[in-house]
Amino acid sequence: MIELALLGAGRIGQVHANSVSQHHRARLQYVFDPVFDSARLIVDKYGAEMASLEQILQDRDVQGILICTPSDQHATQIERAIEAGKAVFCEKPIATDLLTTRATLEFVESNRGILMLGFQRRFDPHFCALKSKLSEGLFGQLEQLTITSRDPEPPPYSYMRASGGLFKDMTIHDFDMARWLLDEPIQSVYATGSALVDPKTATEGHDIDTASLVLTSQTGKQITILNSRRSTCGYDQRIEAHCAKGTLQVNSVRETSLVIADNTGISESPLENFFMTRYQKAYQAEISHFVDCLATFEQPLVSGFDGLEALRLAEAAFMSLRTGDVVKTESI
Amino acid sequence: MIELALLGAGRIGQVHANSVSQHHRARLQYVFDPVFDSARLIVDKYGAEMASLEQILQDRDVQGILICTPSDQHATQIERAIEAGKAVFCEKPIATDLLTTRATLEFVESNRGILMLGFQRRFDPHFCALKSKLSEGLFGQLEQLTITSRDPEPPPYSYMRASGGLFKDMTIHDFDMARWLLDEPIQSVYATGSALVDPKTATEGHDIDTASLVLTSQTGKQITILNSRRSTCGYDQRIEAHCAKGTLQVNSVRETSLVIADNTGISESPLENFFMTRYQKAYQAEISHFVDCLATFEQPLVSGFDGLEALRLAEAAFMSLRTGDVVKTESI
Amino acid sequence: MIELALLGAGRIGQVHANSVSQHHRARLQYVFDPVFDSARLIVDKYGAEMASLEQILQDRDVQGILICTPSDQHATQIERAIEAGKAVFCEKPIATDLLTTRATLEFVESNRGILMLGFQRRFDPHFCALKSKLSEGLFGQLEQLTITSRDPEPPPYSYMRASGGLFKDMTIHDFDMARWLLDEPIQSVYATGSALVDPKTATEGHDIDTASLVLTSQTGKQITILNSRRSTCGYDQRIEAHCAKGTLQVNSVRETSLVIADNTGISESPLENFFMTRYQKAYQAEISHFVDCLATFEQPLVSGFDGLEALRLAEAAFMSLRTGDVVKTESI
Amino acid sequence: MIELALLGAGRIGQVHANSVSQHHRARLQYVFDPVFDSARLIVDKYGAEMASLEQILQDRDVQGILICTPSDQHATQIERAIEAGKAVFCEKPIATDLLTTRATLEFVESNRGILMLGFQRRFDPHFCALKSKLSEGLFGQLEQLTITSRDPEPPPYSYMRASGGLFKDMTIHDFDMARWLLDEPIQSVYATGSALVDPKTATEGHDIDTASLVLTSQTGKQITILNSRRSTCGYDQRIEAHCAKGTLQVNSVRETSLVIADNTGISESPLENFFMTRYQKAYQAEISHFVDCLATFEQPLVSGFDGLEALRLAEAAFMSLRTGDVVKTESI
Repeated sequence: MIELALLGAGRIGQVHANSVSQHHRARLQYVFDPVFDSARLIVDKYGAEMASLEQILQDRDVQGILICTPSDQHATQIERAIEAGKAVFCEKPIATDLLTTRATLEFVESNRGILMLGFQRRFDPHFCALKSKLSEGLFGQLEQLTITSRDPEPPPYSYMRASGGLFKDMTIHDFDMARWLLDEPIQSVYATGSALVDPKTATEGHDIDTASLVLTSQTGKQITILNSRRSTCGYDQRIEAHCAKGTLQVNSVRETSLVIADNTGISESPLENFFMTRYQKAYQAEISHFVDCLATFEQPLVSGFDGLEALRLAEAAFMSLRTGDVVKTESI
Repeated sequence: MIELALLGAGRIGQVHANSVSQHHRARLQYVFDPVFDSARLIVDKYGAEMASLEQILQDRDVQGILICTPSDQHATQIERAIEAGKAVFCEKPIATDLLTTRATLEFVESNRGILMLGFQRRFDPHFCALKSKLSEGLFGQLEQLTITSRDPEPPPYSYMRASGGLFKDMTIHDFDMARWLLDEPIQSVYATGSALVDPKTATEGHDIDTASLVLTSQTGKQITILNSRRSTCGYDQRIEAHCAKGTLQVNSVRETSLVIADNTGISESPLENFFMTRYQKAYQAEISHFVDCLATFEQPLVSGFDGLEALRLAEAAFMSLRTGDVVKTESI
Repeated sequence: MIELALLGAGRIGQVHANSVSQHHRARLQYVFDPVFDSARLIVDKYGAEMASLEQILQDRDVQGILICTPSDQHATQIERAIEAGKAVFCEKPIATDLLTTRATLEFVESNRGILMLGFQRRFDPHFCALKSKLSEGLFGQLEQLTITSRDPEPPPYSYMRASGGLFKDMTIHDFDMARWLLDEPIQSVYATGSALVDPKTATEGHDIDTASLVLTSQTGKQITILNSRRSTCGYDQRIEAHCAKGTLQVNSVRETSLVIADNTGISESPLENFFMTRYQKAYQAEISHFVDCLATFEQPLVSGFDGLEALRLAEAAFMSLRTGDVVKTESI
Repeated sequence: MIELALLGAGRIGQVHANSVSQHHRARLQYVFDPVFDSARLIVDKYGAEMASLEQILQDRDVQGILICTPSDQHATQIERAIEAGKAVFCEKPIATDLLTTRATLEFVESNRGILMLGFQRRFDPHFCALKSKLSEGLFGQLEQLTITSRDPEPPPYSYMRASGGLFKDMTIHDFDMARWLLDEPIQSVYATGSALVDPKTATEGHDIDTASLVLTSQTGKQITILNSRRSTCGYDQRIEAHCAKGTLQVNSVRETSLVIADNTGISESPLENFFMTRYQKAYQAEISHFVDCLATFEQPLVSGFDGLEALRLAEAAFMSLRTGDVVKTESI
């Protein structure tokens, strides 16, 4: 059995703990969280022990650490875990600035550590079906990629201010999707954004809530990203890949397959309304992948480098928004 | 140019007059309707002349007659037109009873006349696409055929009483679809029906408004027909052909391709709400086919015999409803 | 914690064991299966102990028994468990004949036992969404109910012979759905069926593979059931409820939301292809419901009586098929 | 009756002649086309007379002129018709350069002439349904507008060179849609484009074939336009309006409502494959609107000014593409 420890027993920590329990080769040995009640839930439900970070790092049987703590603790905890010889799965981001991110990655690399980043969308069965079709090559080259991500509603202003802004918090997943599906360096970024959902997003949150971006690749391929902090029909997550021989779309996932036809029209079920429900299978698959990598000594498919590259695109987008100009990614 | 005359300038007569005007090889020469104003519209818009039935039949240049008069005049007018050597397109039914229908068909046949019946659904592009796929044979044998026909709302009670009842008025089209798609004799009919939409349908209209039928063919293929005089979402016309290698469906046609996603769900446009809008292209194509047959001396694809056979199924259904038993078609 | 024991560690037993592990108030204490390897999997993964039926029944801490053994053992095991004071969750059927079923139910009743039957579709989120809309009453009375159940492919001939035939094995779920949704006694059953998928279904399996049924209720409501042992696009499970003020449909569930548009058309993902994947959430919800009932001392929503009534409809269908006549349910 | 004359009896001229014949208050009196055979078709089918431009302009009974000649003749013919006191319907563009366009509009205005431009999409029932919902105001402010226009295949290189390029030939319709739906001045244009479908588009056609554009309005609303000269599934025309209280989409129109479910998936009909089929109703409705305006002395809903503004956006897009920078529309 692969023994794991969990740092941070909040919402996403609970999800990962459950995913570990579903894997036949893994066991959650420890949980660390200063909030006793959160940790208690994990202990009761999955039989893990509460432990300090030190205890965890000293237990030689622990092979992997799942980092689900607040973002500003990620970099330090990654380094400590790597130092102790543990493989690390870390929720994004490594850090919200490039300097720390690069330093952390260098540390991981010089220690030949294993670091997997939590871009769970890469494990979503819907997006994987799209990726798999692209990889088969039957549809020819990808020419235009359109990614729509709209959240049901905005987060609190305090969250906006701490998160590094919409591009680093929300678009970061879309940047990763673009990189994953395009498989080619991105050359330029143009971003426009505004506070249309709520004017206070600008004044209180120091952020935007509606953004449209166009990215181009070296060979002239075009990526469009549409973001909004508002979507009345639920969690709206779509990808369209327009290729030489066909157009592939992943549509947003509906809650049920109920359709009602009456005098107001033909009405399908609303979309899944919460990212954790929408990406439930993706979360389970990414932890399963992490465990499998530990068991087979293979490199995880999502690395810290992917986190760095997505962050660079977010920085480019931010610069484009501020200056009103197109930004070359090589300058970031 | 093929010269035609129209008997009956009501709603469906106007539709056919317009279809004639759209055909580059046909001209509407005469219109006959005792109601002056209806005929006037045709004269003004398409340049036809008003004429009596006698005048029309005596004009040797008239090749075809379109009969759109009330149903009880059909049989007589068919015979007179055939006698005068004209080809006939007649709205269904030939008559609402088997005796008259059979007699009329014998008359047509003994005079080697041409009689096309107005089962317009056979010319609907959606159903034709289905038929065409079946005929290609790529999907193997047809095993289960399901036909759903639901009208937006019931007709007046007086219409119900005069029409011969739901099976002869409404299901008759579904019986024809079944025969057309199945291409195999139907052996038994089981029909159940009730007045669920409006209890007065029974007491005032002497009819039912909701019916479910199962027909079987000689080789055990199964046909299900679902009818209702109520459909809040519009004119609901569907066909599903379950075959050995695939299931083919024609869905009901929506008014527009607008989709609205909001907090009540994902809402498509309502269905076309009126049979003349829904079958607009079918009406045009059937008249076009009739003209083409006159021009090329070919037999029309829908004959009087098809009208007789559909009527026999309607009679079988009625007998099944009355007795509560399954009815063998050979007994009709 | 509610302690449970599992009889039968086959495919469906494994599913239920996992569902128990996901419930925060339940624990699987014992597993009984003469096949050592099957039981072993449950022991390893969920920490249950292997035990004989006697040991299980004697342990007073065990509150509920999950019966997932071969069908012919159900009746006896239900009685023994009830006798020992345990609540029982049993996979359908109680028995494949009415006599045994009735005797078992009388035993349960006279012992005031709790017996929940495994009609998992009642817990499917898609069908529950439909039921919930019906129950709200906003759509008025249900007038026509259409249930389509088509399996990807036929079972082995030996299974057909042992299962009691298509109506008792497959349509039984549709009968239960009809009863659940209609909420009104069913009065008559007309069934037609044939061996269209594979002629050997008749000669080797002594069964049919394609069936169409029409049922009527006391007030003239109409239920249509379409069954086939063949569905090339996957596991095809649909329900349509045509009501006075709207038509509600549950469509078959697709594997993913990927849509591919190319020169062959617009292609959606195939359907879920396996009943255990399609009904994964339903299986979990039904076990969760059973546990909750034990915890709150409430009666489960699906009783042994529901199993009896569905079996009566299956017998009526069989008689209709054999005689070619419509069958009144009161005669069964 | 409103008497009209047609200049240019090519493909689109034939369409408009038919539309005139369908209007009960209009008659096509003359057709002018140096190509005898094209004009002949109109004469034969609709009873128009062949005439020279001079004859047409001198006939005082002619109220309106439909200009469907090659683009480089539009400006002159508009001026001559306006001078002669005729109302003008002209296919887009007035001219492919701003100078001529502005001069022509000034001429029309100083003569108080009526000039309607052929932006037929404004009369498409699908887009009109969207516009109508937006105008009702129930969905709150429009925040993000996404317009996808993909042609089935590229035009000849010679056409590309003569047309003024993709932005003036194809995107021009999308610019007009954006203006129509947004109802607010557009402030900036960013355009990226490349020759991905066919590298010779660049070398032989001096054009691009794939483009992605982001436009912003004064209040920060965002418009995205996606164009390609390739769409394997047919003529792909979509609009999505993301509003405060709902997201409205017009999807591409399918040829039929046939759906095929087999072992390759669930396959819908391909899209309408030709712009004249896709916009058939729109073409008829725009001519109907023109005739109605003449009959009621009202201004048409699409003016020459709309042509100028769309052309300005096309020029801005072209400058953005050439410079790689964002372009402010006030500079054009």
